Amino acid sequence: MQVHDVLRFDFWFAHRVSYGETDSMGVLYYAEYLHIFERARNQFIRGKGLSYTEVEERGVFLPVREASCRYRKPFRYDDLIRINAGITHWGKASLTFTYMLWNEAEDVLMAEGMTQHACVDRSGRPVAVPGWLKNPCI
Amino acid sequence: MQVHDVLRFDFWFAHRVSYGETDSMGVLYYAEYLHIFERARNQFIRGKGLSYTEVEERGVFLPVREASCRYRKPFRYDDLIRINAGITHWGKASLTFTYMLWNEAEDVLMAEGMTQHACVDRSGRPVAVPGWLKNPCI
Amino acid sequence: MQVHDVLRFDFWFAHRVSYGETDSMGVLYYAEYLHIFERARNQFIRGKGLSYTEVEERGVFLPVREASCRYRKPFRYDDLIRINAGITHWGKASLTFTYMLWNEAEDVLMAEGMTQHACVDRSGRPVAVPGWLKNPCI
Amino acid sequence: MQVHDVLRFDFWFAHRVSYGETDSMGVLYYAEYLHIFERARNQFIRGKGLSYTEVEERGVFLPVREASCRYRKPFRYDDLIRINAGITHWGKASLTFTYMLWNEAEDVLMAEGMTQHACVDRSGRPVAVPGWLKNPCI
Repeated sequence: MQVHDVLRFDFWFAHRVSYGETDSMGVLYYAEYLHIFERARNQFIRGKGLSYTEVEERGVFLPVREASCRYRKPFRYDDLIRINAGITHWGKASLTFTYMLWNEAEDVLMAEGMTQHACVDRSGRPVAVPGWLKNPCI
Repeated sequence: MQVHDVLRFDFWFAHRVSYGETDSMGVLYYAEYLHIFERARNQFIRGKGLSYTEVEERGVFLPVREASCRYRKPFRYDDLIRINAGITHWGKASLTFTYMLWNEAEDVLMAEGMTQHACVDRSGRPVAVPGWLKNPCI
Repeated sequence: MQVHDVLRFDFWFAHRVSYGETDSMGVLYYAEYLHIFERARNQFIRGKGLSYTEVEERGVFLPVREASCRYRKPFRYDDLIRINAGITHWGKASLTFTYMLWNEAEDVLMAEGMTQHACVDRSGRPVAVPGWLKNPCI
Repeated sequence: MQVHDVLRFDFWFAHRVSYGETDSMGVLYYAEYLHIFERARNQFIRGKGLSYTEVEERGVFLPVREASCRYRKPFRYDDLIRINAGITHWGKASLTFTYMLWNEAEDVLMAEGMTQHACVDRSGRPVAVPGWLKNPCI
């Protein structure tokens, strides 16, 4: 991916790398990126005037069906990660978040990832994405 | 603590240190010990012919009220931890696990810890430790 | 994916889901799968007569360049996961692990994932996969 | 502990509970408190005009020798934790952080903990706490 191809979303989120997130190679452990994705999308939804707790209280759950991450350059302890995220696909009963992780100066793309979520009810059955969830997010 | 003072329990459990559990100091991160304590006590209960899932199905929950750990020497990636654990105190509505973490050769005490658990019902009210839980464990 | 399409590798690894790995939906948290992948590939390499510590001592590092997971059915606390894993691609300076996660009875495919690793030297420069690493693994 | 006995420090830190930090009891998992303690003390040191990275660059390391936590009331997903922390003891070659975790409204003490740190050089030998570390913190 060339820098001119890089997606830019309105939403930004910052996360400081703690010791507990690093590994003995001295870098942010690869599974921790998925925790950071979760923090970013929770904050994204909160920024739309909802919260994921409210989404669940309305009987809608968004379990992850697929996740992936491409690790370009490592983050280290105490680095400030700039996460730029947005919803890049709406299915009938699913949605996809994309995450671009930048260094603090926002000039090096360090990693990018996505999570695809099913939209289900309390019993786990697929339901159409409700308008009250979709409309504030598009 | 002198080695001759060290508690020895019948129950032993082994755990291999993964990369994801280490930090950039190159050692097992200090919060991971509490995950290992949990694995040890689950296996301890399973060895008594119960499982913690069954304990919960009978309406008894054992939330942690207090936890502590003394870190003597660090574990590193790929080390095999020998955990020696047992129940060292029975209260009316509580119980205490003690954990001794040894190196693979079992001749160096690397860490020791404890977790104190309340015994509560589904609504969180204290209940007396039931005999079916206590008797297999003493 | 139909069951008859499912890859089967010689290597199997078991992992018991702990409380600390679950989330408040009651299921294994999605980032924990990547920790389990790491445990599986470490054990895979150890089964080949090496260990990842030895690989690093010989100056070869295998940082993750890409990871993905497809979550089909959730694991719950105390479930025993049967992980079936193998190396499915050898590049000039890279290799790819594939992981198939089964229920305890090994008749339901619960999740599948992959990790792609660069092969680099101590300074992070790509190096050809050494024969002593590749030959025991193919 | 009565509320009038509760320690109050100048330093406050906030942390939002993510899904990945909860367990299937629906509450913040007990080991996660130690991660939050680490985030709080890193931020505490940063607020003194240092950073833990700089502390290490000057050849001083502060490994945890002992940690404990008393869990009073559980935090749940999406709760905002108000952490009030400070250094409560200076030894010759050690120091102790105390952490008080409050609910968002800061009127219920949910948990309290401490971490005791050795002060060591790069080779792990105890060294006296340097003035440049102690003076900004007292």
